[in-house]
Amino acid sequence: MDERARIEMLAHALGSGVKTAGIELGIGDDAAVLEVGTRGGERIVWTIDEQVEGTHFRRDLASWQDVGWRSFMAAVSDVAAMGARAWCALAALALPDDVDDASLEEIARGQRAAADVAGAPIVGGNLARGPVLSIATTVLGACDHAVRRAGARPGDGLWLAGHVGLAAAGLRAIETGRTGDARLAPAVDSWRRPRARLDDGMAMSAIAHAAIDVSDGLARDVGHIAAASTVRVVFDETALRGDAALLEAAAALGVDALELALYGGEDYALAVASPIPIAGFRSIGYISVGAGLALLGADGERPLEPRGYDHFSAR
Amino acid sequence: MDERARIEMLAHALGSGVKTAGIELGIGDDAAVLEVGTRGGERIVWTIDEQVEGTHFRRDLASWQDVGWRSFMAAVSDVAAMGARAWCALAALALPDDVDDASLEEIARGQRAAADVAGAPIVGGNLARGPVLSIATTVLGACDHAVRRAGARPGDGLWLAGHVGLAAAGLRAIETGRTGDARLAPAVDSWRRPRARLDDGMAMSAIAHAAIDVSDGLARDVGHIAAASTVRVVFDETALRGDAALLEAAAALGVDALELALYGGEDYALAVASPIPIAGFRSIGYISVGAGLALLGADGERPLEPRGYDHFSAR
Repeated sequence: MDERARIEMLAHALGSGVKTAGIELGIGDDAAVLEVGTRGGERIVWTIDEQVEGTHFRRDLASWQDVGWRSFMAAVSDVAAMGARAWCALAALALPDDVDDASLEEIARGQRAAADVAGAPIVGGNLARGPVLSIATTVLGACDHAVRRAGARPGDGLWLAGHVGLAAAGLRAIETGRTGDARLAPAVDSWRRPRARLDDGMAMSAIAHAAIDVSDGLARDVGHIAAASTVRVVFDETALRGDAALLEAAAALGVDALELALYGGEDYALAVASPIPIAGFRSIGYISVGAGLALLGADGERPLEPRGYDHFSAR
Repeated sequence: MDERARIEMLAHALGSGVKTAGIELGIGDDAAVLEVGTRGGERIVWTIDEQVEGTHFRRDLASWQDVGWRSFMAAVSDVAAMGARAWCALAALALPDDVDDASLEEIARGQRAAADVAGAPIVGGNLARGPVLSIATTVLGACDHAVRRAGARPGDGLWLAGHVGLAAAGLRAIETGRTGDARLAPAVDSWRRPRARLDDGMAMSAIAHAAIDVSDGLARDVGHIAAASTVRVVFDETALRGDAALLEAAAALGVDALELALYGGEDYALAVASPIPIAGFRSIGYISVGAGLALLGADGERPLEPRGYDHFSAR
């Protein structure tokens, strides 16, 4: 298939049945064309994320559809973290020669399925040859008010929507060939098919003082809130251990649930600082005066490193 | 440098001194935040382009600043091709371990220089580790009316702003170590420092029936106009040969100027179909009834293949 045929195939695989407001021209021209007036909301939020083979996924551990799905959800999760609704997306793929057209179509089906769930159709993109497969996804969202990393105040609670550590447990299950263990099924699903928490993001947008999505691990990502807000964030160990699915997966793997919860990434949970409870979020700590992170356990409070998954220095 | 330090360095290197309307929040959060009201124009155009080492550039043939510059101009050129003005951009870089922090900063300086010329600051992005260097750039533009590939009509003239073939001559000069030849200097500069034709794009936007930027070669890209508009496009050989800089470079290299003009890419000229002349554009042919491409020479008209640079089937 030449480039034009590939783009036609992708336009077919990606083409959404849903008519989305404000999309005047989609795949197939130099750029997508969007109408501003019908989008709603006073502000646009705009993000880009890239998944690279070998760094973010391995072909032997994920289906092509999973690769497409995960790349989309990782990107749209940043829109959720701003408290915005997702509008539409573009995807740029670098393709090695050994990714054939059928595989590319499977990737596109995974992207499409994720885009449908997020309500944000893919309206364009780019194809390039490259020695390694990568998918860069850029997403536009709309909102009246964007929730930033900065803004958390001492006295706020720290609230979480979604699991943390479960996807990391799932990856470990996949890596060790234990996907058949029923206790690990929710974990495996969390890694293969994460879901950006767009509804939770919109629910918190008018209330939360600060927010972030957990892509690189809770400690690391909430560390960004602490740094940007110049506050101290204290995690409640009991609360972090209070996730039945995580406990079961950790037990099956013989690893510590707290380690998974603090340092495992790719669940795309939302962590927010808020003065009041928010529907769909559970309490996992609080904001105090100071800097950095701490863990409140049975023996009191101890400092915590904001480490996690860092593409450049950790792992 | 860890990821946070790298992002801080990039924010510094990329940060524009120019205050751009509508940018409420730039580099450093989950997403950039843009205000819709102050942007101007009824429509947004949105594009993504990716440059991959080995496919689009080689380290031994381009400086890091050139790599950054070229990646930005390749992306923003699509905004020019829609007749829009550039608004702002995000960039996602995949970085191998052997691209050190100083090299990354040079890349960012090249991006910044191009962004300044285009008037479109880089307001966010993504860093990931990868086995090969790639730069994905997404750009938003604004306009009242977007010019598409479809819309060319029989009787329109075919008009060109900028050179075609000159960048390809420049790449050949660089590959063969002939950058010291003064006759090749404009060609080498065209390849190293292409300029998206944003002003020409805005000049044609209210007049042209169809437009495209020439990234993969004139025949291939104008072939997209012919296909999308269901018309035949006839190039005038004499006009294509009437570019003094191209003729001089072709002579110095001992290659045919017409071959360079028809099939050489990466100049980012604009080719448009228009019923009347447009300031800054020169006539290079016309649109007729039918399909495909043709070349009108001294011996009459002959069909032309819409080939050029195709990442997947040619070269």
